[in-house]
Amino acid sequence: MKKKRVLIVGGVAGGATCATRLRRLDEDAEIVVFDRGPYVSFANCGLPYYVGNIIKQEEKLLLATPPWFQDRFHIEVRTRAEVTAIDRQGCAIAVRDLETGCEYHEPYDALVLSPGAAPVCPPWPGIDLPGIFTLRTIPDSRQIRNWIESKKPRQAVIVGGGFIGLEMAENLVHRGLAVTIVEMANQLLPPLDPEMAEYAGERLIASKVHLRLGDAVAGFEPSAEGGLLVRTQAGASLPADLVVLAIGVRPEIKLARDAGLETGARGGIRVDDQMRTADPRIWAIGDAVEVKNLITGQWELVPLAGLANRQGRVTADVICGRDTRFDGVLATAVCGFFGFTAALTGATEKSLRAAGANGFQSVYLHPRDHAGYYPGGHPIHLKLLFRTSDGLVLGAQALGESGVARRIDVLAAAIQMHSTVFDLEKSELCYAPQYGAAKDPVNLAGMLAANVLRGDMALAPWRELEASDAFLLDVREPWEYNRDTVEGAANVPLGQLRSRLSELPRDREIWITCEIGERAYYACRILAQHGFRVRHLSGGYETYWVMYPMG
Amino acid sequence: MKKKRVLIVGGVAGGATCATRLRRLDEDAEIVVFDRGPYVSFANCGLPYYVGNIIKQEEKLLLATPPWFQDRFHIEVRTRAEVTAIDRQGCAIAVRDLETGCEYHEPYDALVLSPGAAPVCPPWPGIDLPGIFTLRTIPDSRQIRNWIESKKPRQAVIVGGGFIGLEMAENLVHRGLAVTIVEMANQLLPPLDPEMAEYAGERLIASKVHLRLGDAVAGFEPSAEGGLLVRTQAGASLPADLVVLAIGVRPEIKLARDAGLETGARGGIRVDDQMRTADPRIWAIGDAVEVKNLITGQWELVPLAGLANRQGRVTADVICGRDTRFDGVLATAVCGFFGFTAALTGATEKSLRAAGANGFQSVYLHPRDHAGYYPGGHPIHLKLLFRTSDGLVLGAQALGESGVARRIDVLAAAIQMHSTVFDLEKSELCYAPQYGAAKDPVNLAGMLAANVLRGDMALAPWRELEASDAFLLDVREPWEYNRDTVEGAANVPLGQLRSRLSELPRDREIWITCEIGERAYYACRILAQHGFRVRHLSGGYETYWVMYPMG
Repeated sequence: MKKKRVLIVGGVAGGATCATRLRRLDEDAEIVVFDRGPYVSFANCGLPYYVGNIIKQEEKLLLATPPWFQDRFHIEVRTRAEVTAIDRQGCAIAVRDLETGCEYHEPYDALVLSPGAAPVCPPWPGIDLPGIFTLRTIPDSRQIRNWIESKKPRQAVIVGGGFIGLEMAENLVHRGLAVTIVEMANQLLPPLDPEMAEYAGERLIASKVHLRLGDAVAGFEPSAEGGLLVRTQAGASLPADLVVLAIGVRPEIKLARDAGLETGARGGIRVDDQMRTADPRIWAIGDAVEVKNLITGQWELVPLAGLANRQGRVTADVICGRDTRFDGVLATAVCGFFGFTAALTGATEKSLRAAGANGFQSVYLHPRDHAGYYPGGHPIHLKLLFRTSDGLVLGAQALGESGVARRIDVLAAAIQMHSTVFDLEKSELCYAPQYGAAKDPVNLAGMLAANVLRGDMALAPWRELEASDAFLLDVREPWEYNRDTVEGAANVPLGQLRSRLSELPRDREIWITCEIGERAYYACRILAQHGFRVRHLSGGYETYWVMYPMG
Repeated sequence: MKKKRVLIVGGVAGGATCATRLRRLDEDAEIVVFDRGPYVSFANCGLPYYVGNIIKQEEKLLLATPPWFQDRFHIEVRTRAEVTAIDRQGCAIAVRDLETGCEYHEPYDALVLSPGAAPVCPPWPGIDLPGIFTLRTIPDSRQIRNWIESKKPRQAVIVGGGFIGLEMAENLVHRGLAVTIVEMANQLLPPLDPEMAEYAGERLIASKVHLRLGDAVAGFEPSAEGGLLVRTQAGASLPADLVVLAIGVRPEIKLARDAGLETGARGGIRVDDQMRTADPRIWAIGDAVEVKNLITGQWELVPLAGLANRQGRVTADVICGRDTRFDGVLATAVCGFFGFTAALTGATEKSLRAAGANGFQSVYLHPRDHAGYYPGGHPIHLKLLFRTSDGLVLGAQALGESGVARRIDVLAAAIQMHSTVFDLEKSELCYAPQYGAAKDPVNLAGMLAANVLRGDMALAPWRELEASDAFLLDVREPWEYNRDTVEGAANVPLGQLRSRLSELPRDREIWITCEIGERAYYACRILAQHGFRVRHLSGGYETYWVMYPMG
């Protein structure tokens, strides 16, 4: 029987995983990996930390080398080998050796495209000036390191306030630079709902990072001092000795599109649930493909290493005749910056609305990552989205200093398994004083949402607060109320509520707030049972200030 | 309509939760909580840390006080009030005021028993000598603190190597004492499988704690130096200035048993899935009741605060006419000691065998808590149990310095939702270099188990290693092999395997090992495809040394 010949274009996360999985399943297949760059299987996600010198040695970023692939897996890896065309009829690819300039052809039985995505780099005036960088490869990060070490820059502008932008901010501050982030959107971390992203902004400002949200770059020019000036559309002129563009990535689809393979509206290659393109001999995986969101059903670009790896595995299985599927994504993601963690899984309010969904609600809570009586706890700001009809968990976002990834991981596993908020109520999670609470934040989120669905606590719509004619009631203590409160709220402390019912209106809804929502919930229960029409301002003042950050 | 009168016996985790939930559901009910002790709603789980002075102020341990219950919830709390009898016919309890000695009766519509459990305290000779303590209440921990501060003890013996014993060991070492743990079983942390508990033992020994496993206390006597001598059954005589008994707790069931309520073989009160005893007006919750294990179906005693709280909630719901259920427990638990975490959820091999189960397998793995290329990672020692017929996840145990509770929490959520190992393979979990890996430990556990179930990798039975006539093969590099290996193993490094096939036997099974199991898996795939009969020694040398700790 003829040996199967599998060619893989791109040898980073998806391609490398696919190659080694193929070998494990088929000892006889001929497997060749082509990569345009000098390295394969490198730790893309580690590059900001190499720039920041948290990862000190470049070798650490190399997860595997061509000789390693050869020795361990009998996989041939050709670096500096650019695949320039696909001859679908002839089942062959054209390859250019970037060292010699020679072109040659290679036939395939199966072809896997794992070309990745390239940093977006708009044609702004001055974009080619020295000192302006993107970050995708080891050579990219080496260049930034060299620039830092040789030019001793003092001020940096990072264009883009997404995950990479915030990681770069942390690493450049670690390197001693003053950092400004310019972000076109009105929020940081665009995958998050805007009010949740406010917590990230607060942390960045506390870490002395300057933020320019809702402003975009207009161009770059040399400054009189020998550095750069970043001009913004709002008219600002920001001095910078170093600029990093971190405004997202765009799938590398030229090869696929030139070969007539279908691409989607989001600009990625379209594949079926076995990662196969319209051509039954060609698969595509990784950052270059569109994936279906499991919650919203929308096609998305989700450039994450974990997904690329899983897709590589699925593809290897399918090429070897196994019936493995890639169903879609929750797009679980995490980002760390300045001792803070932001993470999310599943849908956001934003993504649900964009998909035209309704019939969902959300609760906010701010529990500590571990028992309050044990020292060193930190609040976790958590938003949970759930379907009103049955309590199905749709998504979650969390930010805080500690325990954030853990709770989002639990919720990701819960969403994967179609958990409802009633399941979350009774999840049995680790509790000892330094690790959690007898009611874990995940339990609390489930309980709050279940309270809503059981009719024990109606939610007030935060976004309608300003237009509402509801009676606003703050049930905290006077010293808390006098410090700050929801604008227009009256104050009756929870402990006095039963004796001061006569002060409350029976002809209007009462929307109740406190510090984090707990006392307001108790107040809701008391007043509802006394016949008042009440709603709960979920998350209390800790949600109010991010919902109305100028308030 | 007459107000409902609910009496609650015991005001710590379960009782306090039940009381406040009742009030939220029924503003009119009359709710009275009785507690024998001077405090209610205190942080039981924090007591070892109060002894260790990690928690410095006793007030921190008081989660709520009687006036707080009154002000916020209109709940009457009577402390130092011992409930001495239940008159089921008359629907009343007898109460003794421990301050005045007066006895009185209180009628109830519903009665909730939340009496907790008492430390086991065998009638050993000398058990009443000064310096011997148990730890259940705030006064208990205050006594130990006072003893430490006034007597300046230098040596402590902790009897019992379970969760509380290890927490006490950490805290007493933190207080400057030399600590010996005497544990009757041949392992620490009895809920864990013995080989997994070895990692805990290693950490304790490295932290200068002396271990005496498989030995039991015979009695105590005063020492010539004014301290104590702990005599063991093996004949040892251990000097101690302080002894803490931490050999478990026993449900407080006298009240229930005297009232003729059913108790189970494990010594706890029997209740249905609404926490109701055989008497329809009496409920029982918390450490005093037996609960059904969701995996093994066995009745168990699981004295954990989170369960007590949940049972309190269920009971309040049921008393208020809601159809809420308590289905059973996974018994998820966590324990921290000396920078190490041990956690488990669901069944263990031990508990499955005790329940007569078979048809399950387990995989061992030792992944890092975060990407290897990012500094500061630590291994997580993980054991996953799954059902052979369909891959249902049955249980997991993990130990390590970091990321342990997170993975056990994810697995607890997965088990709750009846996940299979095939679901774990594709769970989408948080990955950034400092938080995890593109293939998270949970994914890896799923992949290994799925490899077994798909027939890609047969497991060698570790326990049969010594009796087996299999050919043992270590595929690590010679420098690793020469350092230590599975006894009797031959060495062929993975990279040379394909060229040295002729050295391997075709007439015997080959059991393959390496450092942590990864290379052995690759070797299995290579050899299986070349027609050899191979099995995988799951977890490699890192499992071998705990499986055969004397080896």
